Amino acid sequence: MIAAGMRLHAAVFLVLILAGGCTQASAPGAPPAASAPGPAPADPLPSWNEGASRRALTGFVERVTKEGGADFVPVAERIAVFDNDGTLWSEQPIYFQLQFVLDRVKAMAADHPEWRAKQPYKAVLDGDMKTLMASGEKGIGELLAVTHSGVTVDELGEIVRAWADTARHPKTARRYTEMVYQPMLEVMAYLRANGFKTFIVSGGGVEFMRPWVERVYGIPPEQVVGSRAKLKYEVRDGKGVLVKLPEIDLVDDRAGKPVGIAQVIGRRPIAAFGNSDGDFEMLEYVTTGPGPRFGLIVHHTDADREWAYDRGSHIGGLARGLDEAAARKWVLADMKQDWKTIYSAAP
Amino acid sequence: MIAAGMRLHAAVFLVLILAGGCTQASAPGAPPAASAPGPAPADPLPSWNEGASRRALTGFVERVTKEGGADFVPVAERIAVFDNDGTLWSEQPIYFQLQFVLDRVKAMAADHPEWRAKQPYKAVLDGDMKTLMASGEKGIGELLAVTHSGVTVDELGEIVRAWADTARHPKTARRYTEMVYQPMLEVMAYLRANGFKTFIVSGGGVEFMRPWVERVYGIPPEQVVGSRAKLKYEVRDGKGVLVKLPEIDLVDDRAGKPVGIAQVIGRRPIAAFGNSDGDFEMLEYVTTGPGPRFGLIVHHTDADREWAYDRGSHIGGLARGLDEAAARKWVLADMKQDWKTIYSAAP
Repeated sequence: MIAAGMRLHAAVFLVLILAGGCTQASAPGAPPAASAPGPAPADPLPSWNEGASRRALTGFVERVTKEGGADFVPVAERIAVFDNDGTLWSEQPIYFQLQFVLDRVKAMAADHPEWRAKQPYKAVLDGDMKTLMASGEKGIGELLAVTHSGVTVDELGEIVRAWADTARHPKTARRYTEMVYQPMLEVMAYLRANGFKTFIVSGGGVEFMRPWVERVYGIPPEQVVGSRAKLKYEVRDGKGVLVKLPEIDLVDDRAGKPVGIAQVIGRRPIAAFGNSDGDFEMLEYVTTGPGPRFGLIVHHTDADREWAYDRGSHIGGLARGLDEAAARKWVLADMKQDWKTIYSAAP
Repeated sequence: MIAAGMRLHAAVFLVLILAGGCTQASAPGAPPAASAPGPAPADPLPSWNEGASRRALTGFVERVTKEGGADFVPVAERIAVFDNDGTLWSEQPIYFQLQFVLDRVKAMAADHPEWRAKQPYKAVLDGDMKTLMASGEKGIGELLAVTHSGVTVDELGEIVRAWADTARHPKTARRYTEMVYQPMLEVMAYLRANGFKTFIVSGGGVEFMRPWVERVYGIPPEQVVGSRAKLKYEVRDGKGVLVKLPEIDLVDDRAGKPVGIAQVIGRRPIAAFGNSDGDFEMLEYVTTGPGPRFGLIVHHTDADREWAYDRGSHIGGLARGLDEAAARKWVLADMKQDWKTIYSAAP
């Protein structure tokens, strides 16, 4: 299936290892606009405990929306960007897009009897994660290419949608799209109610996210920036289609995130939300612009309700962000302390 | 300035030769929503003469917005894409972005005394268009790289903004941003008033368009798809910036337009507006999707008020589009017959 000479960008591994994912979340109702007269508005952030994190966020939003205030920001410039994996939904024990790849290899195996004896396919079919991981960038890159290319963008969308509707997480038994964070859904709705446009900026593939983010996060496909493959336009049966090529066009991670933002959004956002050092440059880019700025890191501290990890984690590693958050005035949101609830919907 | 080994993508020529541009247009007031009760709404398209082109457009909009109708399209899917050069503003005698490049070379020449004796710079400084054009892809690509790279995205934005505020077209003496088409401003406002999201999809550079399209077209930077350079993230004086590299990332023209749409917008638009064969694939991609579709070609037929050209034109050539428009049910808008006025504002 994969031509020998096919160019697999070295960064393909990163993309895979920085996926995106899916939730049957009931979108929280938009809170009333801050300036609406009448009875006291309902709490727009009911899943956030009182504390410094919550106060920093609401204080920022109040400042930038206060007409005539020193920090007022016109609606057009109220752009907020959100990492996906580990910021809007979980990412353990493996990035959900990698789980999608493994499931897809299994689904495709019936048409590929040769995979039973060929690595890294055999490792996937045997559930041998150790051998799979040892296949490294080359092996996992090949799996990514096999499962994400050749098809059209529309076809891949249907495949992802079907997977998101049925696949379940091994630990929680929830659909992956039911493992999105209720407090972050509230943040997005709160920002939108205050005139912000919310974008996802993820290391995961755009085509893996677009089929479900509108339903789950209320974010339309055109507000998703992510890693992307090269595409080729073709006419099939008289219909124009985009075919995914097995070549990476952008790795939207680390220093690639500001690049993706500049290419697609075209102006510097004023608020950024991340959880790992893969988001460092995005947070830096956003918070070093002129005027009021907001950066927040979701710190995974809750081993009981979710996972606890930061330094040295093979996924979502967070070290530099932890070290520099205070000096850079980034909010470190403590999942265990700050969040009343974790997930958005019952399994 | 230009390192010898610098990779100048072959397609760089195309990008240059497919620019974007600038107008001090007074944005037309949004017409009342079609379903608003009360007195008869003002004509949303006052610059369009009665006729088949106008009827085709209003008929399409009425069908897709009629709730319960067979052709109803939800608001989220009402995406319309517009080419820029020759569709939203003029493109003769040379693409306005090429004019910007030439003006920029002249402005930079004081710091480059060696340019007086070096081609293709000498040709620009001498106003010798024949020699300049003979320098071809290599020469013009070098000018594009020199004038569009090395600077940050923000710096280029300031340079473009200053140019748009002052430069004047040799024939009309208008600012380039005053050479946008009033009938097309009305189409965009009419579509937006009917729930459409309007995007530019241009062969011109995104960074050449974003500084002025919001003011001129009412289209925010994040709704501009265009040819783009590779970018590099850097921290300068503690501030994150994006530096433009002299390497093309996407040539958003011909088959590159559906690619740009799929990468950035992420869903198939339902309406497309173009003027040349550079827009053919975009029109094809948009109008071969399921459900109601609309395609329109602005046909330059008015040598008195604008320019008249189609087949064989060195800029904005239109042959296949002319030949196939009827069979594909694309509207051929005749500038001379269909448009009461051409430009949006007095010079």
